[in-house]
Amino acid sequence: MTRHETALIDAGAQIGEGTSVWHHAHVRSTAWIGERCTIGQGVYIDEHVCIGDDVKIQNHVSIYRGVTLEKEVFVGPNATFTNDIAPRSLGPWERIPTFVRRGASIGANATVICGIEIGEYAMVGAGAVVTHDVPAFGLVYGNPARLVGWVCRSGHRRPLAQSRTSICDQCPGDRR
Amino acid sequence: MTRHETALIDAGAQIGEGTSVWHHAHVRSTAWIGERCTIGQGVYIDEHVCIGDDVKIQNHVSIYRGVTLEKEVFVGPNATFTNDIAPRSLGPWERIPTFVRRGASIGANATVICGIEIGEYAMVGAGAVVTHDVPAFGLVYGNPARLVGWVCRSGHRRPLAQSRTSICDQCPGDRR
Amino acid sequence: MTRHETALIDAGAQIGEGTSVWHHAHVRSTAWIGERCTIGQGVYIDEHVCIGDDVKIQNHVSIYRGVTLEKEVFVGPNATFTNDIAPRSLGPWERIPTFVRRGASIGANATVICGIEIGEYAMVGAGAVVTHDVPAFGLVYGNPARLVGWVCRSGHRRPLAQSRTSICDQCPGDRR
Repeated sequence: MTRHETALIDAGAQIGEGTSVWHHAHVRSTAWIGERCTIGQGVYIDEHVCIGDDVKIQNHVSIYRGVTLEKEVFVGPNATFTNDIAPRSLGPWERIPTFVRRGASIGANATVICGIEIGEYAMVGAGAVVTHDVPAFGLVYGNPARLVGWVCRSGHRRPLAQSRTSICDQCPGDRR
Repeated sequence: MTRHETALIDAGAQIGEGTSVWHHAHVRSTAWIGERCTIGQGVYIDEHVCIGDDVKIQNHVSIYRGVTLEKEVFVGPNATFTNDIAPRSLGPWERIPTFVRRGASIGANATVICGIEIGEYAMVGAGAVVTHDVPAFGLVYGNPARLVGWVCRSGHRRPLAQSRTSICDQCPGDRR
Repeated sequence: MTRHETALIDAGAQIGEGTSVWHHAHVRSTAWIGERCTIGQGVYIDEHVCIGDDVKIQNHVSIYRGVTLEKEVFVGPNATFTNDIAPRSLGPWERIPTFVRRGASIGANATVICGIEIGEYAMVGAGAVVTHDVPAFGLVYGNPARLVGWVCRSGHRRPLAQSRTSICDQCPGDRR
């Protein structure tokens, strides 16, 4: 692990080999972070959060308890997760989980309401507000976010009318 | 008051009993913060800002001069306030006030234009852009934010067609 | 240059006279920042970024490599830039440039997709998601951002139907 001297890593946090924790980031105890991840400037990783290998989290993102990021997820700068559907300053509340599946990307400054599942290799556009589940390989954007197309593992876009399981004709490995 | 050792509290700031100021937060002189508040990671509280008791401010929020938060307000992570309606880098400008009334909640990553009043116990959805006043107990979301329903003090939602003053049938104390 | 003691300025960064770098900001080596700029709390300035004179960058903004801010630009708090149009955690990617021209303003919590040019003295409303070029003196807002009017150098608004080159009748210097 590489950590900048200003990063704050609480005792008990587990951080994998090859992961970098950058300036003024804060990882709380009982957080579990995989290998070869990037934790950007000012990022906050809450207690009990679980983050897979090869995840990149850009600056000023908070991963609150209840949010799970599978491996190879990308989270853009200032993207925002939540864990309370109707927050109030006082009184009881229920923590609601969010799952971001393998290889999915959350665009810069996007907002993800809790209780959502973002499917494998899905892509959430910058500034989107995600209020419903996103299917695997789905491309969504807008407020509220709407399904507007499909993306391949490399991020190439295909029209909504095409099958989301088709092989990508822009990916060299998929061409015949 | 509890403060993390990396929190910066300028001389002259007034902070009430039981309030916590977390990692890398910054409270400027002449700010006034009530009791039992939570000031999250990286939060900025400007000069002359007034914040009531039991207010919770999540990570990376800036409360600029001109913004007033009454007691029991909740502000979600990355929510953004402003105090200039037409900002330019150079030249004169006028500071425009914003009021968030008792018990209101501002969702994660929401944006509040200055000159707005957010009424008591109103709820601003995550990612909303608030460009008009929000009535007491009003629920708004979208860009621009629209009134879509009502919420009770505990955050239970009721349709827009119902009276906003009705007793909440989901709150145990209100049931007969 | 004025810098707060918690600001991190990497060796090799060039920062002009009269510029202030505030709390927990981070300027990387090979960044070039002009004179009389304000770099707010928690701001991140990437390598190879070029920022003109008299630029004001509010709290928690990241200026990534590929983004250029000409002189007198204003960037509101939590506004977000990008440099990858289809980000993935793994694999190759192409850095795409963004240009913000002289005197333009980016509103609080706005999102600017990469590959965009924001024209001279244009104004991007708070919370907007900019997906297309913005003409000089253009006023845009919404998600996606739409051209809704014109602004003068001082930020006074004119209807879309008026010429964008007309002299501003609200500016004392322009009145006859």
